[in-house]
Amino acid sequence: MLSTLFSLCEHSVCLHGQIFGMDTFFKLKTTPEVFQIIDRFQPVGLEAVPLDEAEGRVAGADVLSPQDLPGFLRSAMDGYALRARDTFGASESLPALLELKGEVLMGQSPSIKISKGEAMKIATGGMLPEGADGVVMVEYCQVLDEGTLEVNRAIVPLENVILPDDDFKKGAIVIQKGRPLRCQDVGALAGLGQTEVSVYRKPKVAIISTGDEVVPIHTSPRPGQVRDINRYTLGAFCRRIGAEPLALGLCKDDFDSLKGMVAEGLAEADTVWISGGSSVGTRDLTLRVLDTLGDFELLVHGISISPGKPTIIGKSGEKPVIGLPGHVSSALIVAEIFLTRLIGRLSGLAGEPGEFQAHVEAYLSRNIESKSGREDYIRVKLFREEDRLLAEPIFGKSGLISILVESDGLIRVGMNTEGLYEGDLVGVMLFESPNRRLLL
Amino acid sequence: MLSTLFSLCEHSVCLHGQIFGMDTFFKLKTTPEVFQIIDRFQPVGLEAVPLDEAEGRVAGADVLSPQDLPGFLRSAMDGYALRARDTFGASESLPALLELKGEVLMGQSPSIKISKGEAMKIATGGMLPEGADGVVMVEYCQVLDEGTLEVNRAIVPLENVILPDDDFKKGAIVIQKGRPLRCQDVGALAGLGQTEVSVYRKPKVAIISTGDEVVPIHTSPRPGQVRDINRYTLGAFCRRIGAEPLALGLCKDDFDSLKGMVAEGLAEADTVWISGGSSVGTRDLTLRVLDTLGDFELLVHGISISPGKPTIIGKSGEKPVIGLPGHVSSALIVAEIFLTRLIGRLSGLAGEPGEFQAHVEAYLSRNIESKSGREDYIRVKLFREEDRLLAEPIFGKSGLISILVESDGLIRVGMNTEGLYEGDLVGVMLFESPNRRLLL
Repeated sequence: MLSTLFSLCEHSVCLHGQIFGMDTFFKLKTTPEVFQIIDRFQPVGLEAVPLDEAEGRVAGADVLSPQDLPGFLRSAMDGYALRARDTFGASESLPALLELKGEVLMGQSPSIKISKGEAMKIATGGMLPEGADGVVMVEYCQVLDEGTLEVNRAIVPLENVILPDDDFKKGAIVIQKGRPLRCQDVGALAGLGQTEVSVYRKPKVAIISTGDEVVPIHTSPRPGQVRDINRYTLGAFCRRIGAEPLALGLCKDDFDSLKGMVAEGLAEADTVWISGGSSVGTRDLTLRVLDTLGDFELLVHGISISPGKPTIIGKSGEKPVIGLPGHVSSALIVAEIFLTRLIGRLSGLAGEPGEFQAHVEAYLSRNIESKSGREDYIRVKLFREEDRLLAEPIFGKSGLISILVESDGLIRVGMNTEGLYEGDLVGVMLFESPNRRLLL
Repeated sequence: MLSTLFSLCEHSVCLHGQIFGMDTFFKLKTTPEVFQIIDRFQPVGLEAVPLDEAEGRVAGADVLSPQDLPGFLRSAMDGYALRARDTFGASESLPALLELKGEVLMGQSPSIKISKGEAMKIATGGMLPEGADGVVMVEYCQVLDEGTLEVNRAIVPLENVILPDDDFKKGAIVIQKGRPLRCQDVGALAGLGQTEVSVYRKPKVAIISTGDEVVPIHTSPRPGQVRDINRYTLGAFCRRIGAEPLALGLCKDDFDSLKGMVAEGLAEADTVWISGGSSVGTRDLTLRVLDTLGDFELLVHGISISPGKPTIIGKSGEKPVIGLPGHVSSALIVAEIFLTRLIGRLSGLAGEPGEFQAHVEAYLSRNIESKSGREDYIRVKLFREEDRLLAEPIFGKSGLISILVESDGLIRVGMNTEGLYEGDLVGVMLFESPNRRLLL
């Protein structure tokens, strides 16, 4: 069986003259089917990291508040702490007169109690003295002399104060397991006094570049050779999405070499990604090698998308093994769509996928034709014209990295769509984290 | 003058009873005015980083291609290399018969030439032999015997090949200065053979937390004390946007301590951020300290937004000095809106700001009132209901971090708007890089 697998190629055609006949050999999977398969992979293990390094990591456990926070009655304003009932009825024409008993010092528990008819000056964040149950803002008060305060507005009890458990109640869930830690989540953990936090390990990705024509980037390629672009592109992709790339290096199109390198990847990493040459022979070789792994299970052999059709997804034990298309632009598009999700699952990310996915909306600058029966991903460049954001499709030979460099993102042409029209409003999946890339 | 500055506070009110009178003391700046001021800051210096660490960094110089790439005529398909004219007129009913001269080996310059009537087997990425000017795909060919190939389709010259300069022409600009390096940009640099790349240094941000009530996070706060949430929130924010935080530690509300720490920050970092207590007195102290710096220029003293009004922006020499509101949630909102841009400028990011800013669109779940004359930023939580994405405003006391933890993003209510209505479609500025946070 596997010896016939080389008929899986990019353009719905296969060897031996069976043009368009490949679907009879292989059941191509649809994007939702592949997502389901990816969703079955389990997270890698946990580690503890110092709070300073927690941003962007995924929480490995629920974090509960060990106490009420802030833990004491705080003023939310600059003003005067007092008993609310002592202001009842006070107005500009009929101010209340209170005895001023000094000032609350920041960070200290006030040493005196407030009794009926008394007030203490307090700054935002200060602790209310015992007996006081509210703060009247400074602008509604007038100090008449050192010991007398005039208040010309009534407050209700607990006005302008933060209660002891307003931020977090003891035992409340502050951070949920599976949640990526944002700046404010790190801040909340600081508030709880956590100097370190349990997070999922960054999945380690073994990257293998295959192809007799591929040479290390520091060398000068001879005619017929090209530098190893895929390793660096995929390595950068891993870093961006929170994985740790482990470049195993170049592998010749040779059964034993590839077998050895895959074994090394499985031993050292959480997942192995083989970025192949583009020829049918290389893809065939990858499958033959995987087939010799005792515990290998082929899960996806071809996806009904373009580019990216010849993608292979399998597992060895519980570790995902991915065979990516050889063309760098196909490989990166497959990575954006599927491997972001795979790394998400291995990183323990919880929740429903894709719902709030980063995109911009733009108007298509020209018609796009598409074949029904497969999803097409078209690279686009964004530009602005008369206050509208336009998406210009970038077509070109798929072996070129320059096309990707020129593009800002991808648009999807659905399976049952025959194309899109100039002027259509389309969602553009951005190639990169917009926070870093497009804010400026 | 500076001694009266403490009248700038969060709620359009000031001391001394001049309610709503503050705008006569201070000319609040609008968001566009503040953006203009921020845009004048210049990038920090350059450094060289290994290509493996280049992702997300900003290119420090234009990168030109030193040669044509790929540099030789490559096959874009699995097939047969031949002279296109030898296929002219070929069809299934009238195939062309060619002499098969063996196979092109990957990564090697073919040793033989193709002459009239000859063909060579070639895989995707293989180098075309001299004399050949096109590739016919394998599925249109049939090997009749070891030396004879039947071709049943005509190709035009240069069909299915990649030209020597198709990816990059010698001297072409591959990466523009000021561009953040994405995965494919790193890949392109690998293709050029660049093992390292010139990028802007990550701006170093000195963070000072002030407030007599603030204690280090590993301690147990006594009544009246709180842990240093702001330092960790702002530190995480810096890391997320590509800056390097340098936490100088806690500073008492004391003139000399703060002055010493600001001086240390200016000596060690590219910008100093003072995250104040929330009281008017603390803000006053910050301004008095800054005023003693010989070369300090106050650029922004209050912004017409809520929250975030009491923000201070100045410069000491060419280094930005920022006074942030003390409440962590106000501080983070100001950071999202203004300091992302500041770090962008210091990082050398080129281009127009904000145009493609990361956001999602959602329907407002309830009415929001807003005061005309200022921009309001409302925290919202996103949720899905019957296939619509809804934004639920989260109101709450601004001293609480829990409100931020609960929120997914911000919506802006413009200066000249009195509010928004339930069901309005609004843009939600996400708190975090969606690539990491929301894909799953």
